Amino acid sequence: MIAKKVVLIRHGQSVWNELNQFTGWHDVELTRKGKDEAQSAALLLKKNNFFFDCSYTSVLKRAIHTLQYILDEIDQSWLSVQKTWRLNERHYGALEGLNKNQVIEKYGEKKVMLWRRSFNITPPKISMHDKRFPGHDRRYSHLKFDKIPLGESLETTAIRVIPYWDQVIYPELKKNKKILIVAHGNSLRALVQYLNKIDNQKILELNIPTATPIIVEFNEQYIPIKWYYLK
Amino acid sequence: MIAKKVVLIRHGQSVWNELNQFTGWHDVELTRKGKDEAQSAALLLKKNNFFFDCSYTSVLKRAIHTLQYILDEIDQSWLSVQKTWRLNERHYGALEGLNKNQVIEKYGEKKVMLWRRSFNITPPKISMHDKRFPGHDRRYSHLKFDKIPLGESLETTAIRVIPYWDQVIYPELKKNKKILIVAHGNSLRALVQYLNKIDNQKILELNIPTATPIIVEFNEQYIPIKWYYLK
Repeated sequence: MIAKKVVLIRHGQSVWNELNQFTGWHDVELTRKGKDEAQSAALLLKKNNFFFDCSYTSVLKRAIHTLQYILDEIDQSWLSVQKTWRLNERHYGALEGLNKNQVIEKYGEKKVMLWRRSFNITPPKISMHDKRFPGHDRRYSHLKFDKIPLGESLETTAIRVIPYWDQVIYPELKKNKKILIVAHGNSLRALVQYLNKIDNQKILELNIPTATPIIVEFNEQYIPIKWYYLK
Repeated sequence: MIAKKVVLIRHGQSVWNELNQFTGWHDVELTRKGKDEAQSAALLLKKNNFFFDCSYTSVLKRAIHTLQYILDEIDQSWLSVQKTWRLNERHYGALEGLNKNQVIEKYGEKKVMLWRRSFNITPPKISMHDKRFPGHDRRYSHLKFDKIPLGESLETTAIRVIPYWDQVIYPELKKNKKILIVAHGNSLRALVQYLNKIDNQKILELNIPTATPIIVEFNEQYIPIKWYYLK
């Protein structure tokens, strides 16, 4: 039999990746390089005869546009796209928009590494009065205020990503639908960890590269059996 | 009270509009002008403070991309998009891909005007063995063969458009969702006729311009009361 495969892809380079700023939920566009990366990912999928029945992404345009470029390139522009805040990048709290080097200068490298590379330590929280607070943004208006994060760890990111996998995406996989998910470094990390039972320490060492298809294979009982990068 | 408004938009100019070819279900891209038209439509929506909760389009990229350009421009890239064959252009049967002038030379102007401007006369049917038959295309693989048109009149186009309005879109309007539909000359004609009770003769005289927002207003009981172009 042929293994059931789910494809996960992190968006291409964004403007703030390039500027070395903490991005999180801030909605920045892809760079020209990011667009090219998306198209290269699509060519790789095409070469390997991938096509999809369902596609999912976040509500952030760097992921949405990466997915759109991929669908255009594999001639599946016609596929419906589900967009959800649950696949958003980890919310970086009060650090969003700040340059990573400046944050290191202000808080010290040790603290910043702890925020960036620990499993359950959240960055400094954003105030609800801060104009960067997502509660001011129409795309989150359907969420109760206490659902909207003020700053997330990888652990709290996973807590809102996993139910979407379990309740929305996984049932489609069980109908043998071919699934494509385009999301972010940390929402995908949470998913890869959950599906492949990776421990909290090991997952922190995993840096998911931009626009590189990750294949998760499932057996006949829809249990994940392995994962790897498509090359 | 404020009237409930549904916005309908025909896609911008496509490559085959420009070449004067019968397009129908053939999946052609927008021209540069088509993209600019989409952006102008978006600016008009923005100036009038439109935003949306639900968006719908066909499975043809000239409509899909028009919708994407509009959502980008009004800063709603994050809105989920439902894509359905039911909003596709009228299927032009064996005429698809042929130059309109050549068709006139072959069949005579009278016959061609009858196909283009009659309510219930279908064009010459396409063969199921023709490579242009939509049954060969993956995007229609969920449809039973007898559902796939071989050539449609405006009447038969309406027969597959209206149930989608009634069963999928209208229930969202009744939940007070703000709705945007980007589709095609004839699928929108079918919808405008149905909502505004326009007679079969009058609707044939209505040529819906590209990328010009049509507003349909509904009263408190969700009954359409008027329609007009946004200017």
